[in-house]
Amino acid sequence: MRTFTDERDWGRFHDPKSLLLALVGEVGELSELLQWLPASEVEDLAARDPLKTRVSEELADVLIYLVRLADVLGCDLAAAARQKLAAAAERFPPPEVRGVAPLK
Amino acid sequence: MRTFTDERDWGRFHDPKSLLLALVGEVGELSELLQWLPASEVEDLAARDPLKTRVSEELADVLIYLVRLADVLGCDLAAAARQKLAAAAERFPPPEVRGVAPLK
Amino acid sequence: MRTFTDERDWGRFHDPKSLLLALVGEVGELSELLQWLPASEVEDLAARDPLKTRVSEELADVLIYLVRLADVLGCDLAAAARQKLAAAAERFPPPEVRGVAPLK
Amino acid sequence: MRTFTDERDWGRFHDPKSLLLALVGEVGELSELLQWLPASEVEDLAARDPLKTRVSEELADVLIYLVRLADVLGCDLAAAARQKLAAAAERFPPPEVRGVAPLK
Repeated sequence: MRTFTDERDWGRFHDPKSLLLALVGEVGELSELLQWLPASEVEDLAARDPLKTRVSEELADVLIYLVRLADVLGCDLAAAARQKLAAAAERFPPPEVRGVAPLK
Repeated sequence: MRTFTDERDWGRFHDPKSLLLALVGEVGELSELLQWLPASEVEDLAARDPLKTRVSEELADVLIYLVRLADVLGCDLAAAARQKLAAAAERFPPPEVRGVAPLK
Repeated sequence: MRTFTDERDWGRFHDPKSLLLALVGEVGELSELLQWLPASEVEDLAARDPLKTRVSEELADVLIYLVRLADVLGCDLAAAARQKLAAAAERFPPPEVRGVAPLK
Repeated sequence: MRTFTDERDWGRFHDPKSLLLALVGEVGELSELLQWLPASEVEDLAARDPLKTRVSEELADVLIYLVRLADVLGCDLAAAARQKLAAAAERFPPPEVRGVAPLK
């Protein structure tokens, strides 16, 4: 995404607040795909086209702007996510670790 | 994230619309960090603490829910993003390719 | 909201993109209240406290920033909504008008 | 909006989480209108067409779903906003009240 942006000289548009609004725009498009579907049917409907392709495209757009925003903000996104998940794992130990039989 | 969820039996909460709202919640927290900062100063402020750590954590949370949502929706997120970027590169060729001198 | 802002000299923070991010922040807080609740139980849960008060506060925050953003952007929000609803009513006539018996 | 919905028998789609996602969708459309504009120029650009009309329509859509969501959630939106603003006024007294000369 950084190369893509530099090749087009689009970096001048990519201040963090603008990129965040672009991310919001893509989250909005994803929402529009799912909003009126019954909650219990979304997984099935998204498993096949036409929804499958459209959902994939919007998820991809969210990732693209998220990665670009992280780059501009100097954040190592994958490392940050791994760290966050490790912290969450400690804060919410799984049932076995707490000495409780897991739900079957 | 899938393992983390399964170990805690949290999959029953993770229908796509709920996960999307969780993603929206994290995008909202990221917005709250940046909203009142002057657009031209965000990059500098995010380069050091206290903002650096907080921004990283919120970016990570957005990624975590995005990855989980993609998993539930059966989408190969990285592949979808690469494909989307390739399509964008074709739709918006860089100046050199268009026979135009690039902006200096 | 305009008076409130002027009295505190906060207008200098209220450029449209910042206000829009503030709105996104409030929508995020509202999402966090509802995200893990079963879709079919939200109405009941929101009808009484503790959720009732918290939902009201977040809905109010969204309205406050929306009204302020509309003010800054020179938009008569109520007139725009009435016009939009009138246009939607024409585009989607109710069943009776389409000569179809309404759903019972 | 309640009448509009009832006349079309659309109430069955309007559970709170779906309406909230619809609101997110409209906030996303508004973001797409503003995202790449320089922060300092948005007010001027939104003061005239073509942006003026499009911004008004998206602001209206956000209000429409917000009002509908509040209705479904049993919230008196205007009263809640007035109460929230009164509480904020108390929490952040204006400079005069704090015995500080207001910023000139």
